[in-house]
Amino acid sequence: MSKGTVVLAYSGGLDTSCILVWLKEQGYDVIAFLANIGQDEDFDSARKKAENLGAKKVFIEDLRSEFVEHFILPAVQANAVYEDRYLLGTALARPCIARRLVQIAQKEQAEFISHGATGKGNDQIRFELTSYALYSDVKVIAPWRIPEFYNRFKGRKDLMEYAQKNDIPLPITPKAPWSMDANLMHISYESGVLEDPKCSAPTDLYLMTKNPDEAPNVPDVLEIEFKNGKHGVGRIDIVENRFIGMKSRGIYETPGGTILLQAHLDIETFTMDKEVRRIKQGLGIKFSELVYNGFWYSPECDFLLHCINKSQENVEGKVQLSVYKGQVYILGRESPKSLYNEDLVSMDKQGDYDPCDASGFIRVNAVRYVRIKSRVKLEAQG
Amino acid sequence: MSKGTVVLAYSGGLDTSCILVWLKEQGYDVIAFLANIGQDEDFDSARKKAENLGAKKVFIEDLRSEFVEHFILPAVQANAVYEDRYLLGTALARPCIARRLVQIAQKEQAEFISHGATGKGNDQIRFELTSYALYSDVKVIAPWRIPEFYNRFKGRKDLMEYAQKNDIPLPITPKAPWSMDANLMHISYESGVLEDPKCSAPTDLYLMTKNPDEAPNVPDVLEIEFKNGKHGVGRIDIVENRFIGMKSRGIYETPGGTILLQAHLDIETFTMDKEVRRIKQGLGIKFSELVYNGFWYSPECDFLLHCINKSQENVEGKVQLSVYKGQVYILGRESPKSLYNEDLVSMDKQGDYDPCDASGFIRVNAVRYVRIKSRVKLEAQG
Amino acid sequence: MSKGTVVLAYSGGLDTSCILVWLKEQGYDVIAFLANIGQDEDFDSARKKAENLGAKKVFIEDLRSEFVEHFILPAVQANAVYEDRYLLGTALARPCIARRLVQIAQKEQAEFISHGATGKGNDQIRFELTSYALYSDVKVIAPWRIPEFYNRFKGRKDLMEYAQKNDIPLPITPKAPWSMDANLMHISYESGVLEDPKCSAPTDLYLMTKNPDEAPNVPDVLEIEFKNGKHGVGRIDIVENRFIGMKSRGIYETPGGTILLQAHLDIETFTMDKEVRRIKQGLGIKFSELVYNGFWYSPECDFLLHCINKSQENVEGKVQLSVYKGQVYILGRESPKSLYNEDLVSMDKQGDYDPCDASGFIRVNAVRYVRIKSRVKLEAQG
Amino acid sequence: MSKGTVVLAYSGGLDTSCILVWLKEQGYDVIAFLANIGQDEDFDSARKKAENLGAKKVFIEDLRSEFVEHFILPAVQANAVYEDRYLLGTALARPCIARRLVQIAQKEQAEFISHGATGKGNDQIRFELTSYALYSDVKVIAPWRIPEFYNRFKGRKDLMEYAQKNDIPLPITPKAPWSMDANLMHISYESGVLEDPKCSAPTDLYLMTKNPDEAPNVPDVLEIEFKNGKHGVGRIDIVENRFIGMKSRGIYETPGGTILLQAHLDIETFTMDKEVRRIKQGLGIKFSELVYNGFWYSPECDFLLHCINKSQENVEGKVQLSVYKGQVYILGRESPKSLYNEDLVSMDKQGDYDPCDASGFIRVNAVRYVRIKSRVKLEAQG
Repeated sequence: MSKGTVVLAYSGGLDTSCILVWLKEQGYDVIAFLANIGQDEDFDSARKKAENLGAKKVFIEDLRSEFVEHFILPAVQANAVYEDRYLLGTALARPCIARRLVQIAQKEQAEFISHGATGKGNDQIRFELTSYALYSDVKVIAPWRIPEFYNRFKGRKDLMEYAQKNDIPLPITPKAPWSMDANLMHISYESGVLEDPKCSAPTDLYLMTKNPDEAPNVPDVLEIEFKNGKHGVGRIDIVENRFIGMKSRGIYETPGGTILLQAHLDIETFTMDKEVRRIKQGLGIKFSELVYNGFWYSPECDFLLHCINKSQENVEGKVQLSVYKGQVYILGRESPKSLYNEDLVSMDKQGDYDPCDASGFIRVNAVRYVRIKSRVKLEAQG
Repeated sequence: MSKGTVVLAYSGGLDTSCILVWLKEQGYDVIAFLANIGQDEDFDSARKKAENLGAKKVFIEDLRSEFVEHFILPAVQANAVYEDRYLLGTALARPCIARRLVQIAQKEQAEFISHGATGKGNDQIRFELTSYALYSDVKVIAPWRIPEFYNRFKGRKDLMEYAQKNDIPLPITPKAPWSMDANLMHISYESGVLEDPKCSAPTDLYLMTKNPDEAPNVPDVLEIEFKNGKHGVGRIDIVENRFIGMKSRGIYETPGGTILLQAHLDIETFTMDKEVRRIKQGLGIKFSELVYNGFWYSPECDFLLHCINKSQENVEGKVQLSVYKGQVYILGRESPKSLYNEDLVSMDKQGDYDPCDASGFIRVNAVRYVRIKSRVKLEAQG
Repeated sequence: MSKGTVVLAYSGGLDTSCILVWLKEQGYDVIAFLANIGQDEDFDSARKKAENLGAKKVFIEDLRSEFVEHFILPAVQANAVYEDRYLLGTALARPCIARRLVQIAQKEQAEFISHGATGKGNDQIRFELTSYALYSDVKVIAPWRIPEFYNRFKGRKDLMEYAQKNDIPLPITPKAPWSMDANLMHISYESGVLEDPKCSAPTDLYLMTKNPDEAPNVPDVLEIEFKNGKHGVGRIDIVENRFIGMKSRGIYETPGGTILLQAHLDIETFTMDKEVRRIKQGLGIKFSELVYNGFWYSPECDFLLHCINKSQENVEGKVQLSVYKGQVYILGRESPKSLYNEDLVSMDKQGDYDPCDASGFIRVNAVRYVRIKSRVKLEAQG
Repeated sequence: MSKGTVVLAYSGGLDTSCILVWLKEQGYDVIAFLANIGQDEDFDSARKKAENLGAKKVFIEDLRSEFVEHFILPAVQANAVYEDRYLLGTALARPCIARRLVQIAQKEQAEFISHGATGKGNDQIRFELTSYALYSDVKVIAPWRIPEFYNRFKGRKDLMEYAQKNDIPLPITPKAPWSMDANLMHISYESGVLEDPKCSAPTDLYLMTKNPDEAPNVPDVLEIEFKNGKHGVGRIDIVENRFIGMKSRGIYETPGGTILLQAHLDIETFTMDKEVRRIKQGLGIKFSELVYNGFWYSPECDFLLHCINKSQENVEGKVQLSVYKGQVYILGRESPKSLYNEDLVSMDKQGDYDPCDASGFIRVNAVRYVRIKSRVKLEAQG
């Protein structure tokens, strides 16, 4: 008797292959789901592998344009950056994948979903909050939080042995001494040797961007697209705060996202009223925290997406920029919706502006100083 | 009969030289004050020039360490960045200069101060708000806002003619087709040919940083100091919102400030609690706006400086970084006040953390979703 | 030769009657505009008076429903309160009046508008920012900021004399020793004897609300409508911060607005997700400041109105409340869009909630404490 | 063999008496701790009761002045109000009690603490976050989250039976059909018949405040103190958002707190710069959320307390107010630190203020409108 059907977020790697087999061992029927979000993967062989391991069904779906349109673009519009630096490449992919995961679960009348995320990270939260939001009765099996599982598989060695016993193909290439998460927007690297925050990341770690010293000696004036970044743009090394309250060290490369962010910041300030910008900046910071913490499908994220979207009505135009040796340089911008007024701002023309007005403006801004000074004087005398 | 004494913020250039003479012409005694904040200037010859033009007294004062300690460092602690990009190099210098300006005015019993800032810019506000804050009865003479002055001097040509007539030495080097403001932290470039926001800045504009393509082919591991930046770090080209409501285009180079900002962001996140960081981030954004708008010496800026200072109590440690071809790369960090816990975060150790707790954490975070779903269901049925 | 046409915001009182005549004296054609926003006024006799004083045209328009629908209701939705107490009764009326004022100016091809607001208050800003926003080329004549006017009319006595000389009917009732602004939402009282902030307001000052001790001894269960408040609800006495930087003392009575605010707060929390509420609360505070400062017709206020409006999609339902002796008591509420779940929250039922989850929730919320404690311990030992 | 020692937050009531006995039954030594925070309780008989039930030790401690000085006063300074209405009377008491609880546990070398808070409420979180913050290795026994306990005691009836069997004295007075939490600041009422949000609270529910219709017919001019409120001030009925994600309905009476809050709001605005006030208002809202959610002893709450404390440096003075029939009326205020300037604000005097400055102030504030209008015009034409 089956305990029911589980849709497993399957990556094709060792961990989720073992989980697939283990779930079957526990008495579940397993449907494997693998999303194509632009990672470097042999999807055909992943399908075969899952079938061989006993998956009842295997879904492999191309979510790349959905990922770009519905997740990356809103984040660019929000200028979404977590803790001033991280562009949220993984955090944006998770709700995209999890959404499809629970859609499949609902279609296939599966009560359960499962994933291979650890019990200490953000991804478990992102997967599961999305799942609860879209399929409120779903039951989650998170093996890395189940004592029978994590006590049995204490390290990679245990997984390897289990794989051997269960005809799970072993990885051909030796495992890098860190873990990785890749999609069309970025690659993140963490744990393993990277856990020591004072150790420099190895120079051969980066897969998506060239080392800036090997980058071309000629800058590119950009056509914006999400592709491998030959100029080494978008590498960061940060210690960040996980939702769960730990600090963790991550190394990220986000070439296209970095360029898009810089370009968007530029054209936004060019076309958006400054006070709207100020309010929207606060909303964007809040949005970034929510996305990082896994609340993409929450009422407040819906609300913020709506507000941010409204703020973008007039944000259009062209930004010229060059990318060179790891850096993005804005060169110029133009827009039919520009709020920049060359006559008004020009030092050489008076435009529609009476400089005398500034005297009143400044003096009125100083009115509240006066009383404070008098108080200070009184206190000094008193 | 003198109309009184004016302390003039004197730069040694054509504009303030003409203003010096014009103020005397209007019947004032003029004291010239020139601050050394690290700009490239021949201070001796500037002193002689001012004396020759009839200044009653000339004060030339070295404010460099005051500028670094009391203005730049608090800004670094605040991660102060205006509109997500501008590091406030000019905005920080203004209150430092104006503070000394009014101190001199008070000491010399001068009723008036004067400056050469235009009527459209931020600097007039920064100078004057500082002045009103510290010397509330001061009277400000801002020639570029006085019709008799600005109607008489409609362009550089009028100033040149006036200079010739009044034995004001003409600038030897031809004027760059833009205006500049330099100090030890940064140089800003604006107006003139830069007023067209779609035109790229000339490559020979930059004086403080090397072009990245001429930068050394070997990165430097950094010793942090405010010096010329041979790696081309810290160049930006932005359209920003002036306090006065106009958008203006500015090009900035801030090599040391950029490195310091990156280093500080890193060590701060490493040593500061995440929720304190979140609150402090908001205060830092507010602080940046205030500094940009000229409110350094305001009650609210005092308050924020105090709060931000408190937040820095445990922010200490070392950041290793490399600078190469226009970019700063963080390599590693260590701190006696680190809140990073390698055991706790490690994927390979369990540390003091029970992964099962995460299940409850996630489910409780999803509690409020449930009711919303039910409502949605009811509405769909209704 | 006329200097042009002015549309004057005419109140029917002594000040604006004098201004009307004075404007004519200065060579302008004057159109008088008087808005009915629910104040107690004999509009027919005001029309005759303005005609007799030489107004070229007189517009008297009923803006009451526009005021309620387009200004008061959005403010209620925003829970708009300035500095935690003032419900913005005057601030909301100003853009409503000024909008019509400039519409008339445009229709009548008048280049000028004028008003009787003082040079120290908020109303001048509210009138004029609205006017510049909607009719950017308009020219404003603000007599109380024109030296020839305010030096000539230094007090009420001068106005009375001028009125007598110019056949301006003198007020029949003696002037109250304070100034008032009334509309259907509220009456404000300020200046005169109220300027001493430690003096209690006279008990016979209030016109809109009964003294609570004379209020009925039986509470009313409410039907919400903007009418005179017989229960004495909504009186406040505050010192507030004007936009212009002064603190001023105001006494307000806003019976209907107070009841609506309480009712709206109640039903909003009942039907709105808590995190949406939190974001929206911040937007509402910003909105209140903008309205107070006169920025109703600004891009940022537009943006906020849009966002706040979005947040109200599910805010509907009925609130039962009683009003008694100056106070509003919420009794109960119900809503088809309620997010309140009696089963879930009940102490007597378990509902769809596993109390064990709370243990994990709490422990994960405490994860970041651990490291801080260790640091503190280390420091104590060190 | 004892499993160890538990310090139990003991209230003297049925629930915690049963928990005391149950904990002994489970093999623990139990120390009972009862805090006097101003609730109406016979502490002597509570002590005897706990001793009779087998408590190894009983600590009854008077925390009233600590509660007032270290918890209530900072909250008043913060103008702490949760979701615009709740004055946090229970939320403030919890960390005060829990702090002493873990101090006793540490002194008595007890590994465990226990409390009678339910698994759905905020109090469990407040107790436990405080405990983890101050005693990071403490182990928490929360019976209402332990299946063996809550499945055994499904309702009051089960507790009563258990009491009878175990010689636990039964409550003499019949239980009110709701639960209560009282301290010197407030009483809260929730659950039971109050769980239906549309049902009015019974008029005889309130214990701390008189019904306004029975309140004296003469107002009191106030001397501020935390005592029973004979004027019926401070009653609210709200639906609020628990940290745990549920909405719950609470009825509160906080007479003294309400008066203090109104008085503090008044004197604060009178003596504090308006922009400091604005920043501090945001910090106070954040502070209120943290206190509500149980984060009193968190790094961010420490930080906020420090900042808010700084903001209060000049907040001093006297507020005259009257309380009458459920409402607080501010009558006047005075302060040696007042920033109110009667001359400056007066309509009858010009003071140190040039009304002409306001023209420039307003026009500069409208500068950014101009460009937007042109864009709109262009779009209309285009």
